[in-house]
Amino acid sequence: MTRAKKDIKKVVLAYSGGLDTSIILKWLQTTYGAEVITFTADLGQGEELGPAREKALLLGVKPENIFIEDLREEFVRDYVFPMFRANAVYEGLYLLGTSIARPLIAKKQIEIARKTGADAVCHGATGKGNDQVRFELGYYALEPDITVIAPWREWDFQSRTDLISFAEAHQIPIARDKRGEAPFSTDANLLHTSSEGKVLEDPAQETPDYVYSRTGHPEDAPETPEYVTIGFVKGDAVSINGEALSPAMLLARLNDLGHKHGIGRLDLVENRFVGMKSRGMYETPGGAILLVAHRGIESITLDRGAAHLKDELMPRYSELIYNGFWFSPEREMLQAAIDKSQEHVEGSVRLKLYRGSATLVGRESPWSLYDQDLVTFEEGGTYDQRDAEGFIKLNALRLRTLARRAARGAKK
Amino acid sequence: MTRAKKDIKKVVLAYSGGLDTSIILKWLQTTYGAEVITFTADLGQGEELGPAREKALLLGVKPENIFIEDLREEFVRDYVFPMFRANAVYEGLYLLGTSIARPLIAKKQIEIARKTGADAVCHGATGKGNDQVRFELGYYALEPDITVIAPWREWDFQSRTDLISFAEAHQIPIARDKRGEAPFSTDANLLHTSSEGKVLEDPAQETPDYVYSRTGHPEDAPETPEYVTIGFVKGDAVSINGEALSPAMLLARLNDLGHKHGIGRLDLVENRFVGMKSRGMYETPGGAILLVAHRGIESITLDRGAAHLKDELMPRYSELIYNGFWFSPEREMLQAAIDKSQEHVEGSVRLKLYRGSATLVGRESPWSLYDQDLVTFEEGGTYDQRDAEGFIKLNALRLRTLARRAARGAKK
Amino acid sequence: MTRAKKDIKKVVLAYSGGLDTSIILKWLQTTYGAEVITFTADLGQGEELGPAREKALLLGVKPENIFIEDLREEFVRDYVFPMFRANAVYEGLYLLGTSIARPLIAKKQIEIARKTGADAVCHGATGKGNDQVRFELGYYALEPDITVIAPWREWDFQSRTDLISFAEAHQIPIARDKRGEAPFSTDANLLHTSSEGKVLEDPAQETPDYVYSRTGHPEDAPETPEYVTIGFVKGDAVSINGEALSPAMLLARLNDLGHKHGIGRLDLVENRFVGMKSRGMYETPGGAILLVAHRGIESITLDRGAAHLKDELMPRYSELIYNGFWFSPEREMLQAAIDKSQEHVEGSVRLKLYRGSATLVGRESPWSLYDQDLVTFEEGGTYDQRDAEGFIKLNALRLRTLARRAARGAKK
Amino acid sequence: MTRAKKDIKKVVLAYSGGLDTSIILKWLQTTYGAEVITFTADLGQGEELGPAREKALLLGVKPENIFIEDLREEFVRDYVFPMFRANAVYEGLYLLGTSIARPLIAKKQIEIARKTGADAVCHGATGKGNDQVRFELGYYALEPDITVIAPWREWDFQSRTDLISFAEAHQIPIARDKRGEAPFSTDANLLHTSSEGKVLEDPAQETPDYVYSRTGHPEDAPETPEYVTIGFVKGDAVSINGEALSPAMLLARLNDLGHKHGIGRLDLVENRFVGMKSRGMYETPGGAILLVAHRGIESITLDRGAAHLKDELMPRYSELIYNGFWFSPEREMLQAAIDKSQEHVEGSVRLKLYRGSATLVGRESPWSLYDQDLVTFEEGGTYDQRDAEGFIKLNALRLRTLARRAARGAKK
Repeated sequence: MTRAKKDIKKVVLAYSGGLDTSIILKWLQTTYGAEVITFTADLGQGEELGPAREKALLLGVKPENIFIEDLREEFVRDYVFPMFRANAVYEGLYLLGTSIARPLIAKKQIEIARKTGADAVCHGATGKGNDQVRFELGYYALEPDITVIAPWREWDFQSRTDLISFAEAHQIPIARDKRGEAPFSTDANLLHTSSEGKVLEDPAQETPDYVYSRTGHPEDAPETPEYVTIGFVKGDAVSINGEALSPAMLLARLNDLGHKHGIGRLDLVENRFVGMKSRGMYETPGGAILLVAHRGIESITLDRGAAHLKDELMPRYSELIYNGFWFSPEREMLQAAIDKSQEHVEGSVRLKLYRGSATLVGRESPWSLYDQDLVTFEEGGTYDQRDAEGFIKLNALRLRTLARRAARGAKK
Repeated sequence: MTRAKKDIKKVVLAYSGGLDTSIILKWLQTTYGAEVITFTADLGQGEELGPAREKALLLGVKPENIFIEDLREEFVRDYVFPMFRANAVYEGLYLLGTSIARPLIAKKQIEIARKTGADAVCHGATGKGNDQVRFELGYYALEPDITVIAPWREWDFQSRTDLISFAEAHQIPIARDKRGEAPFSTDANLLHTSSEGKVLEDPAQETPDYVYSRTGHPEDAPETPEYVTIGFVKGDAVSINGEALSPAMLLARLNDLGHKHGIGRLDLVENRFVGMKSRGMYETPGGAILLVAHRGIESITLDRGAAHLKDELMPRYSELIYNGFWFSPEREMLQAAIDKSQEHVEGSVRLKLYRGSATLVGRESPWSLYDQDLVTFEEGGTYDQRDAEGFIKLNALRLRTLARRAARGAKK
Repeated sequence: MTRAKKDIKKVVLAYSGGLDTSIILKWLQTTYGAEVITFTADLGQGEELGPAREKALLLGVKPENIFIEDLREEFVRDYVFPMFRANAVYEGLYLLGTSIARPLIAKKQIEIARKTGADAVCHGATGKGNDQVRFELGYYALEPDITVIAPWREWDFQSRTDLISFAEAHQIPIARDKRGEAPFSTDANLLHTSSEGKVLEDPAQETPDYVYSRTGHPEDAPETPEYVTIGFVKGDAVSINGEALSPAMLLARLNDLGHKHGIGRLDLVENRFVGMKSRGMYETPGGAILLVAHRGIESITLDRGAAHLKDELMPRYSELIYNGFWFSPEREMLQAAIDKSQEHVEGSVRLKLYRGSATLVGRESPWSLYDQDLVTFEEGGTYDQRDAEGFIKLNALRLRTLARRAARGAKK
Repeated sequence: MTRAKKDIKKVVLAYSGGLDTSIILKWLQTTYGAEVITFTADLGQGEELGPAREKALLLGVKPENIFIEDLREEFVRDYVFPMFRANAVYEGLYLLGTSIARPLIAKKQIEIARKTGADAVCHGATGKGNDQVRFELGYYALEPDITVIAPWREWDFQSRTDLISFAEAHQIPIARDKRGEAPFSTDANLLHTSSEGKVLEDPAQETPDYVYSRTGHPEDAPETPEYVTIGFVKGDAVSINGEALSPAMLLARLNDLGHKHGIGRLDLVENRFVGMKSRGMYETPGGAILLVAHRGIESITLDRGAAHLKDELMPRYSELIYNGFWFSPEREMLQAAIDKSQEHVEGSVRLKLYRGSATLVGRESPWSLYDQDLVTFEEGGTYDQRDAEGFIKLNALRLRTLARRAARGAKK
């Protein structure tokens, strides 16, 4: 334990109901002597939340201290969709599925801490990963004087065996397959499932088949392509094949499509904020489709100046989310710029889904900036080809001046 | 014609041997009374160059005025590969296949103009597109006082019929299928084939099958995936499946693979430098594979600071190439930064090619920065989890100060 | 004249009342046979507007076609102040005094064109400068189908003598000192006066004394420094020495102070958007003080993340204004980001004005983020020095990994 | 002390000879039982180094363990000048005088550690500042497995009194004025002197006169301006008034000029990398002049594209240096881009120095890109005013398309 433990009375734990957070729950009770409040969120990870309540009760948490919330709509509406407005990808590829969920969980924990008068919050992220940073930056940004407990950085357990012994000593139920170490660890929510560790640790080795859970194999996907139409308003997806859907319902539907067609797998070696490289396997079936679709609707509704500025700001914006700075002034500034650009990002796009790929095949919009008259090979319309000469000449002027200087130099 | 024609004696024409540039050739002879020097380059567009010589002779070009050059290696080595070091994509998607070829052609025309004492250069790009800009910025950057002739912006032909009449009047051979207007126009080189215009002008309509020429349909690709290993040295691909290949040979091999597996199609509405949106279909079979491969080898050999800086600079770099500023100080500055980063980008990556997708499945390098000790869930090694606390605390400090200010404000 | 003149019925001319725009007025009447509507704005250039009305009447403009407007408050409030929120300087130094005035004039001309049913607008900027671009981009962005007349690019006058002859032939009054060419040309508004041309054209030569009009010589300024306190709300200056002032009144007051103390001179060789370098002398007395003051109040009220992002976006933002893209989506996106950051930029700063310099000497704010407890050398408070170790270690991690790789390489 | 002390045999201490580092020296000997190697560098801080040797001997350091080096030329040539090529300022104003010295000291300590077989390095920077980060990132980047000792973060001294008692107990000589706490602390080298702490901690209060040591008061400076000409080659200053000078000699000469004319004071509230705001007073007499001069020579020799790219990269570059990432791949990438731009930054500039200000009044260069023919109001030369129309029209095209869309929307 790095430093002397503070005197903690009540702590809000981000509780999944699984073995690890159950151990943390008990450890908080026994080590800190603190009253534990559990917070279990449905972010679309695909697990029932009932058992989490049962387990918390079993571990001695008072009924009024058990908070369970369905956050799926809030998650997609206020976190996933704003992020997709930016076409955000980290290091060119990663759709930030884990990163974007942490701030919301942190926010809810702080709200519950305020409601219950808790003086601490606790998460189950390890000391080597990005999630500890994302949780804790969220906590501190919202409640600067909260105490943060990060058990994985604090406790003295040296191994899986130690943890299991502690669980057994405290009557924590242990599923059979949780006794040994998992061949890899996962995180899941409505946007994605990530897998990392153990069998994935050699970046030269292909990911084994059994790692995938959210996407079918492209090779097993239907033999015929499927077409889907996605409607957008103000940069957010609002309908699929003409059917209006809530944000979470829409993303779930896209996930089904992506799963079916084997879309959204990503095998990545990435750079963690804490300084090392790690290898992960991400499955983001609906998100992968949504990114293609959003770029597609932007392509006809966004002006070049806006589009290029967005592209230049995106890497920074994505890095901020990856690093855990969702609740920071600079992320909010970038969001203001991005949102400003989305006013007319409205219309629909058509995609072809086929064995691992989502391909844009058509787009239309009442606000389209695409003007067939301008682009057609026929003369006429508002474009005068003779303007191009002046345009080029003045763009070339400084280059010609440079060339004259170079020639001057050469003659010396 | 915008302005009074200059008195031109000799002009170097970028000559493909096709109908359009043959008309231009004759038009230069008749309108300017100029001696025409033809330059025909093999950039891997897949056409024989012999006929271009025949045609030029037929049209009265003196043998010593016919220049034909195989530029494939120079093209890939000095233009395509440096660009791929940057992972350059325009507007998030376009691999810049046409953009990157224009500067090289411009450079060769200028070299020939110097050699032959020509006072003008001429290209066959239209007045609405980007290529006129790319050619002419190249000309001016290399030879500031050259005269540039852009027939499509100058001549008085109003329609295809006018052009055909002119061709007939001057005994220019017309292939039967060139009499009418083509259903779309194309540009091709070793990196890509682009198609645009006519049947592609409605961005809501899916590209018809007959447009594709460089890639098979994903649905028709082999049923079983194919694995390929690509080796890199200093950021450039140097081998396939262990076989060392020259730049052009390597790209040609990747093209074959991409063609076979239906990889590298892109249906895009893009923003032209001259100000309008246009819709194009790009086929970049080898390039699409190469981009995935290059990002893959970078993922283990490039430091985070370098990688993120590259990602932030890339949109600007790509825009410069797209807009025709290859020969500009700012492109060269960015290239210097990018090249600096590639010193240790060496090793090999393994990709799975399957029905439209190139997927990275493994990477290894003698210079790998991936350190399993750092990332493993096991304790030990050089990473001390307790460091994370201080790291987070100091990263959070300013956010906490902000939160305290906000709280202070709320209490007022 | 580049192209056939359109048939113009009514044209709104940006009319200063001076000789040049009077010649343009008459030229429009005679060449286009158009009804001329004059628009004369008070932007604080320090000239009476009465004579402009007289002159317009004299030149045959109908009374109902003479528009004179005092735009000083709108100019400072909606253009100058938003720009200063960004700490905008072009090429590191220029406060954009001319650039920021053009969009407002363009906007007013378009409004009058709509009101009067005019089909064209006209400005008096030359064909080599930036102002033509700024005016015309403004016109087109607000009224895409307006006809733009730029007499300096169109007419056939070859010299000053031609212009004077035309004026004499049309009974345009010519002030004695306007017969010959001015030794330099100027532009003025409440923010600045610029001077360029002729005597300033050799960048090696110091600007002659007689060029300055808005600032006293530092050597002639008072011997004792003067202190001034400037109050800010939401990033905009609102008071001087405790006295609340409207935007234009405030800037005028700062101009008086700057003039008195010789502050705000800038001798610059800059890069024009049209491609060449030019040399200008700018006097921005109040603006120079305001920039120092705004940076000062931001220094204690702006978070680091916001401040650094602003600094990175500023060059682009300034370039957009300089190039005439005030009414563009990307300028508005950047403005949204910048404005988002200014919510708590409130408080006051104290400056010392002395012989050419405005120096910040103090700043305070109810929203200050400066926390003496954090920074003091004394231990205690919320900062734990031991956190620094972890912070440094994790920031160093990737550098250490790089160093190990380098060492590995060296041993090979 | 955060963690168990490692077993250290030899440690290289950055030793100034002052009281604080003498206490550290003794503390290393007594607490770690380590053999101490002192490294004292002349970076132009204006103190004799002889006494440092005496003191080290007195404190029991073996003669062969005392390293004293004159680094002035290396400091200016390889650190200050490359940084000035970028026009680097942190947060718009700070010339990075302290930041740029730390990497060099770190590098020398590591070199000595290698030479002497030391297993640790040690610095005297406190736990709240930036310097600890800069030193330690430097150490780790160059020698990843070195042990770093940061006494201020480790020892148990609680107050100045504790330190003085320790000094007395160990016969460390204490200058009379060092018994109490200094009213502020300073750092000095050839580039600047910084002052911070205590009397400077209230950012609302003007800096007291006695804080300044490197610059005279502007009010006391000569009544008549002084002109100075600075020559440049490849972006670096090489001569003053025609006299060729080595880098350090040149900077020293500029310091004299700045001192005399009261140039280079900066009162700043800045954002530290470790997360809090601090207030500092910087005096950079020669550097302030050099920045103006370098921008001046660039203004006529640098192309717009290069200049604007430099301006956009500068904030990031400066932040990297401020934060201690001199030895990082991304700083080196940016340096490669910057250096690439400086090839023709050659010529001379003339400045007027007067009571606090350095004002550019003239610049000339054999590589000047300023072309009087292009800019003059006279017609003729290579610039055709008619080109401006097409230039503007195509730049306006997308804005007009946007305006048409807006009009379309309004009509709905």
